[in-house]
Amino acid sequence: MCVLQIDEEVAKLLALKAQIGGDNVKHQFVLKTAKETLTGKYGEDSKLIYDLKDQGGELLSLRYDLTVPFARYLAMNKITNIKRYHIAKVYRRDNPAMTRGRYREFYQCDFDIAGQYDAMIPDAECLKIVHDILSELDLGDFRIKVNDRRILDGMFAVCGVPDDKFRTICSTVDKLDKMPWEDVRKEMVTEKGLSEEAADQIGEYVSLQGGMELAERLLQDQKMCRSKQACAGLSDIKLLFSYLQLFQVTDKVVFDLSLARGLDYYTGIIYEGVLTQAGVAPGSTEAQNGTPAEESVSVGSVAGGGRYDGLVGMFDPKGRKVPCVGVSIGIERIFSILEQKAEASAEKVRTTEVQVMVASAQKNLLEERLRLLTELWNAGIKAEVMYKKNPKLLSQLQHCEESGIPLVAILGEQELKDGVVKLRVVASREEVDVSRAALVDEIRRRTSQA
Amino acid sequence: MCVLQIDEEVAKLLALKAQIGGDNVKHQFVLKTAKETLTGKYGEDSKLIYDLKDQGGELLSLRYDLTVPFARYLAMNKITNIKRYHIAKVYRRDNPAMTRGRYREFYQCDFDIAGQYDAMIPDAECLKIVHDILSELDLGDFRIKVNDRRILDGMFAVCGVPDDKFRTICSTVDKLDKMPWEDVRKEMVTEKGLSEEAADQIGEYVSLQGGMELAERLLQDQKMCRSKQACAGLSDIKLLFSYLQLFQVTDKVVFDLSLARGLDYYTGIIYEGVLTQAGVAPGSTEAQNGTPAEESVSVGSVAGGGRYDGLVGMFDPKGRKVPCVGVSIGIERIFSILEQKAEASAEKVRTTEVQVMVASAQKNLLEERLRLLTELWNAGIKAEVMYKKNPKLLSQLQHCEESGIPLVAILGEQELKDGVVKLRVVASREEVDVSRAALVDEIRRRTSQA
Repeated sequence: MCVLQIDEEVAKLLALKAQIGGDNVKHQFVLKTAKETLTGKYGEDSKLIYDLKDQGGELLSLRYDLTVPFARYLAMNKITNIKRYHIAKVYRRDNPAMTRGRYREFYQCDFDIAGQYDAMIPDAECLKIVHDILSELDLGDFRIKVNDRRILDGMFAVCGVPDDKFRTICSTVDKLDKMPWEDVRKEMVTEKGLSEEAADQIGEYVSLQGGMELAERLLQDQKMCRSKQACAGLSDIKLLFSYLQLFQVTDKVVFDLSLARGLDYYTGIIYEGVLTQAGVAPGSTEAQNGTPAEESVSVGSVAGGGRYDGLVGMFDPKGRKVPCVGVSIGIERIFSILEQKAEASAEKVRTTEVQVMVASAQKNLLEERLRLLTELWNAGIKAEVMYKKNPKLLSQLQHCEESGIPLVAILGEQELKDGVVKLRVVASREEVDVSRAALVDEIRRRTSQA
Repeated sequence: MCVLQIDEEVAKLLALKAQIGGDNVKHQFVLKTAKETLTGKYGEDSKLIYDLKDQGGELLSLRYDLTVPFARYLAMNKITNIKRYHIAKVYRRDNPAMTRGRYREFYQCDFDIAGQYDAMIPDAECLKIVHDILSELDLGDFRIKVNDRRILDGMFAVCGVPDDKFRTICSTVDKLDKMPWEDVRKEMVTEKGLSEEAADQIGEYVSLQGGMELAERLLQDQKMCRSKQACAGLSDIKLLFSYLQLFQVTDKVVFDLSLARGLDYYTGIIYEGVLTQAGVAPGSTEAQNGTPAEESVSVGSVAGGGRYDGLVGMFDPKGRKVPCVGVSIGIERIFSILEQKAEASAEKVRTTEVQVMVASAQKNLLEERLRLLTELWNAGIKAEVMYKKNPKLLSQLQHCEESGIPLVAILGEQELKDGVVKLRVVASREEVDVSRAALVDEIRRRTSQA
């Protein structure tokens, strides 16, 4: 997954190919720089790509997401099926907002399934994974909105949007989670030059939300039916919901015609996981697309993805396609929500897993502390000492209280003579003498639930 | 630890300070770009820093290591003591060598202890950690070489190296693990203009290796004694070894006067973990520093670090120092060694943790497969299906053999009627009927040791 490694591997392979004397490839395809790789994949978001120049003068960029590098990796290594997750940093020249977990350098966590498979089976698995992650993380209630690029395009066509305006109108529809329908409509008509009639027809469709029955209803819709693309998308949504029923996740998944993720590379199903509990996270709380949403308002997207069947082919010299579907989990945003929850709760969050501090009550016992520390470390106990020759007992105990270390093993002249250690429970201040031989087991017993 | 975040935080704070109306700080210190942060910290290695320009025209660089960003983080957040590990990518414009795990973009794993503590206690803990990591990873035999920047500087002084040549002569000494003493001597004399006499005196010292007793002997050495710096370093080495004895790691630690790590920021103890088993890893196998090493030859450094007491102060507006000691683990190099060991052994390395594949023997059972898959997933079993409506049983079994999945849960019309699943052990081809209710426990039982 490393951009520079891949670059170098590619350069080597191409050099080798040139030496060997070439093959019969008609279309010469030399992927020289990372900048070229990223160009033309992100639509209007391209302005957020960080460019950089290396000292050798090659034009380079910092990776914008993990999807495009993944697609390139598949093409360059001729991988036709794979399932993997990947956690790594990406970079965007966006306006950062620390409190909402929006940074310029941030981690993404991606899961993708690549390969030629039967319709909607891997897609359903991706949604099941988003469902399970958001459930496990205990972030409050959530919904997973689902739509399909083909349904959007078909809808634009039957509503009278000119072909060359699909992408830009799609970008405007994408703003429905941040601004009310009236403003979206205005942008379409005033800024993007769409007819009022077309905008109003779009407005009717994008207010629709539902499940499998909505897909069935739209398949009967006189106007929608005129688009073959839309029909194909709607049939797949139906099939998807049948698999989601088997995966027992339909209670959280909503077919939502207003969902229109911005990136150019999606070709089929698209989806977005949003938290619906107000107050869990700061963020936009405007009403969604003009109509009051079925549930509480959306407070922020924490996962998103879709199907991108054409991306790998763009990096393959012969244009061979590898269909892909995947999801990005917004871990920074999730972290900031979890942090805020932790701060709001009375419970103190520990930043260390140390089970026991090895302390001394008198002076000149550093060596004895280090000896006991070694015994504990070698037995797999998480232990620490203060890095002082003669720390005060009080400051050792205070350190434990501050950092939530539950136990203190206290050594003194008497304890050393008796072959015992005084084990102190920080919370209750209870102290018991434990024989040196039994200490490891006693610490394990007392910290096993921690 | 995120450079861009820190930049932004710093910019905000400085802007706020300007608004408030300034303070009495005499020395105005504005750290604007990452490039300035990295400049002047790495000595001759600075040429390996990747520079980059962002679209706004600010001069930026990719981080070269995790130590300098850590030091800046401490200074900017006024943290005076902390202990942390950090795994992240760094970038170097070096000549890559894939087989030896040398890349331009690679992961480092750092552990550092910052704070004003008593001498050598945190330093000894760092060495204990390197010892435990290298032991646990089962990389073959290893040594941890230890030296001290003050001993090197003192040695250079008493051998007659002019003050302004300490750093450049030190860089040459650092090459002793890659080239024989004769070549090192030649570089000192011919390229760096050192007198032959001084070079020969250095040659005598840098051939010395030992433990605490060597430090004691050198403390008695007439010439070495003339340097206060060297004496301070030697006393600390003695103290260090006394703690290492308590930590039970002296069998692997060698006080080696030829160790001279290149980076400018070290101020005290320095160390390097090297694998000593020939053939474990490809790499330099030249004899070390002219004299045959006590053990087998070194085959590559996999960990390194030292004390850097001045680095945090360089980022603090008031120059307040925070003493630090730390270590970097060369995880890419370790990975390439482990990969080569895995390839050389007959044992197949699994790339997936899947415990069971849910398969079907007949057609039209996709829904039944997905239903069983959901049962298994919800019970925490790692399971998968092939993403096909009607996959052939043979191809499902082949997939298990190829990817090392140990069990197959096979559904057929008969099994569904009987309320059972045919559980097949891939290795032995044994098949047993298991009741649906008992399946989860049976899979757990059969894969618990895996």
